Amino acid sequence: MEEMLQISPTAGSPGKEQQAAGVGILLQIMMLVLSFVLGHVLRRHRVYYLPEASASLLIGLIVGGLANVSNTESSIRTWFNFHEEFFFLFLLPPIIFQSGFSLSPKPFFSNFGAIVTFAILGTFIASIVAGFLVYLGGITFLMYRLPFVECLMFGALISATDPVTVLSIFQEFGTDMNLYALVFGESVLNDAMAISLYRTMALVKSHSSSTKNLFLLVLRFLETFVGSMSAGVGVGFTSALLFKYAGLDIDNLQNLECCLFVLFPYFSYMLAEGLGLSGIVSILFTGIVMKHYTFSNLSENSQRFVGAFFHLISSLAETFVFIYMGFDIAMEKHSWSHVGFIFFSIIFIVVARAANVFSCAYLVNLVRPANRQIPLKHQKALWYSGLRGAMAFALALQSVHDLPEGHGQTIFTATTAIVVLTVLLIGGSTGTMLEALEVVGDNHDVSIGESFEGNNGYISPTYDEDASSGNRFTMRLKEFQKSTASFTELDKNYLTPFFTTQNGDEDEIQDNGVSNSRRGRSFRGHQ
Amino acid sequence: MEEMLQISPTAGSPGKEQQAAGVGILLQIMMLVLSFVLGHVLRRHRVYYLPEASASLLIGLIVGGLANVSNTESSIRTWFNFHEEFFFLFLLPPIIFQSGFSLSPKPFFSNFGAIVTFAILGTFIASIVAGFLVYLGGITFLMYRLPFVECLMFGALISATDPVTVLSIFQEFGTDMNLYALVFGESVLNDAMAISLYRTMALVKSHSSSTKNLFLLVLRFLETFVGSMSAGVGVGFTSALLFKYAGLDIDNLQNLECCLFVLFPYFSYMLAEGLGLSGIVSILFTGIVMKHYTFSNLSENSQRFVGAFFHLISSLAETFVFIYMGFDIAMEKHSWSHVGFIFFSIIFIVVARAANVFSCAYLVNLVRPANRQIPLKHQKALWYSGLRGAMAFALALQSVHDLPEGHGQTIFTATTAIVVLTVLLIGGSTGTMLEALEVVGDNHDVSIGESFEGNNGYISPTYDEDASSGNRFTMRLKEFQKSTASFTELDKNYLTPFFTTQNGDEDEIQDNGVSNSRRGRSFRGHQ
Repeated sequence: MEEMLQISPTAGSPGKEQQAAGVGILLQIMMLVLSFVLGHVLRRHRVYYLPEASASLLIGLIVGGLANVSNTESSIRTWFNFHEEFFFLFLLPPIIFQSGFSLSPKPFFSNFGAIVTFAILGTFIASIVAGFLVYLGGITFLMYRLPFVECLMFGALISATDPVTVLSIFQEFGTDMNLYALVFGESVLNDAMAISLYRTMALVKSHSSSTKNLFLLVLRFLETFVGSMSAGVGVGFTSALLFKYAGLDIDNLQNLECCLFVLFPYFSYMLAEGLGLSGIVSILFTGIVMKHYTFSNLSENSQRFVGAFFHLISSLAETFVFIYMGFDIAMEKHSWSHVGFIFFSIIFIVVARAANVFSCAYLVNLVRPANRQIPLKHQKALWYSGLRGAMAFALALQSVHDLPEGHGQTIFTATTAIVVLTVLLIGGSTGTMLEALEVVGDNHDVSIGESFEGNNGYISPTYDEDASSGNRFTMRLKEFQKSTASFTELDKNYLTPFFTTQNGDEDEIQDNGVSNSRRGRSFRGHQ
Repeated sequence: MEEMLQISPTAGSPGKEQQAAGVGILLQIMMLVLSFVLGHVLRRHRVYYLPEASASLLIGLIVGGLANVSNTESSIRTWFNFHEEFFFLFLLPPIIFQSGFSLSPKPFFSNFGAIVTFAILGTFIASIVAGFLVYLGGITFLMYRLPFVECLMFGALISATDPVTVLSIFQEFGTDMNLYALVFGESVLNDAMAISLYRTMALVKSHSSSTKNLFLLVLRFLETFVGSMSAGVGVGFTSALLFKYAGLDIDNLQNLECCLFVLFPYFSYMLAEGLGLSGIVSILFTGIVMKHYTFSNLSENSQRFVGAFFHLISSLAETFVFIYMGFDIAMEKHSWSHVGFIFFSIIFIVVARAANVFSCAYLVNLVRPANRQIPLKHQKALWYSGLRGAMAFALALQSVHDLPEGHGQTIFTATTAIVVLTVLLIGGSTGTMLEALEVVGDNHDVSIGESFEGNNGYISPTYDEDASSGNRFTMRLKEFQKSTASFTELDKNYLTPFFTTQNGDEDEIQDNGVSNSRRGRSFRGHQ
């Protein structure tokens, strides 16, 4: 954004550079408005083969193409380069925070074990499989040959799936709440996992110590992940206590209350980044904690305001990301000589995603009782919904800096092609796919109700059936699921009374009910 | 902000530059939180000699001083330089828009003639007087000698007064509504005037054509001003029509409605900048028009939301500007050899402000009937409330680029000193001053009521007394005042029915009453 600063000393006339900035930003705002209006019209006419994210991407591509053909001044052009710093520091935080903030805790926590399995173990498997396949493709002369660590970096960055498009379609069609929670939870947590994996690999690469102990690497990764999570949860709890005791929930302090509330997520993100941890993981957990505890300590007006505020900010950021990406793809130089690389990469990521989804689903089904198995059609829907978006693009752009020998450029071109293809093709066909798999229905509200009823019922049966399998591994997994259940108890009896002003859980359920129904109406309502 | 981009290729380890960014932004957020909390505590304990703006400036100065003494990494340091582009493109628009948006139209329009006189004619007088005095001081060896055009540039930029501090104190103490409208309207419009004057002078300088026709210059200035105003009003009216006919005021489209509403002001700013006009003037009028017409076309929820949204954003921007400025002043290199220049500049701007206020007040009093004269104590209050803030600072920083021969540096140092001194001294003593002038009282709500009554009563008497003065000049001025009155008629009969969904003006009055009382409670409530 502030490339301007570099050119300002050379620009002659005062205000000239500001004029260029004005034109650049004006164009961006016009594209944003166009995206919102187009998205609204498309939704109104139920055109599901062009979701809003695809429409935004297309608008960016078209305007970028026009700007490329015409003779745009370079001072205006600099306002459109996709800067990964701008993306990571200003666009991504609101999107990820809103993901955590709008998570309805019940279905998320009741599927927590499965989500974590898919997001952490699954993304790890997908990265390794994709990386290995690309490496194998390279040494068998099927495709452009990348060194091994570069292959793993590519595998990591291409495993970050994008939640925006698929979820908006799920929302529109109405689907099973558990499937929704799985897809949502997995795609949000897996961004964090992919970025951590990518950075770890980049670290290996920069220290040229690929022979280092694998165990140390895993340890370092876990350290980052747990550290970031703790930082995020810590900031969230701090904010809960602050709002509980500061007494800001009186009427004329609403602005102060909202200002402080709005600053906390960003604080969490920057704290983690400043400590060398992962800001995404941190802000995601801050979002979950702040929604669960801090939110209920706010005055009623502020609750309504911050809900709408984060929704608005994240909508703007999301739409802008797709426009920005489309524009940059059209403007950037690409080495299209690697068509083979792109073609085989696509096949390999499909295979890698299958390895992720089906193996993890097998593990999850091992421990779940018969009535809670993940059905095959849900697994297929999960497999299908793995389109790649802004996170993969941003990491690929960063790889151009991290790998200056041309490998980064290959990775970037391939990722760009994959992003465009998956967003347009998968995004456009998700509706058809959901219908074909028969996981779609107009029983949206019913299924929410059902799953809520179900949640409260099905947690206890799990332990009764412990004896049905003597396998030690299965036992271990079941213990993990038990611990999530005991977390619910801990939350109800200790955390909620300590961090919020409400005492009984009756209040809480009512409160959740209200906020859910309100969010249900407006949540991603713009897409 | 994105200075990072320049260092990113050279930084070795991946994520290292992001870590520095994280630390920098983290520090900024902590200062913001500290400012808000400190401001709240000070207000609660009724400590008026340290208003929030001064507190923020002091926090910035202290932290900046500490960072200067300690050995901060330069990669973190780059996140704190005051970039005038960042200020003009991202911090200033929300502040100015909120000024226009929160303007209560009745007292503003009933004092419109006086406000325009003070802001346009008065600022012009003040700029010229200050510029001439500094030039005279230079040729009589009283102070550092600047060329004539540079003197006028300095005069223009130092004439931009800052509304934030004084207004928050006025709000706290409660004062006459007409005085409040005068101070508020003048300080907002005069920013726009000062920036236009500065740019015009910079244009003269860059074309080294100081001998050019003065008439052409005035024409060019008026062109900019009228053009920007038209652009702003045009965008405002467009938004009013869009929201009147788009039918977005149904419940589940609230997010789309708010997104579009929030984009319009920025659109107006960038449109004007892109056309080479003044974004500030444009966004100010967009704010006024959007509040008056577009706002009432929104759904009730969105009205509540956007009101709180712009208040929040502008509070954050305002507080950040003072912190940022304090930090930069402490970090920047200054040429303190020009103590004489600073000393005499301060005397000259006091004289220039007196020339502005008292001469314009004389003109205004010429046409006003006896019961509406601006009393001398109000004139004194207006004279006193001319502290210099972020606008002067940003323009001075730009002058360092515009005048590379060292003159810019002198102007910058002098402006910095003037800003710090006036914010701390005048800001801290405004309460005492208001009490000494006896323009303060607890009759805040009463005086609003009175002036509203008064407004409706005193516009007509003006025309009855036309004959009392035969002076042609006075006649001309009275005609101008008549035209503002006929604007009120035009508004009631044509504009409001055309641009809003409401027909009768009964609705409108009620609506204004509600929004005023709500705003009255929360307006600048954080300071």
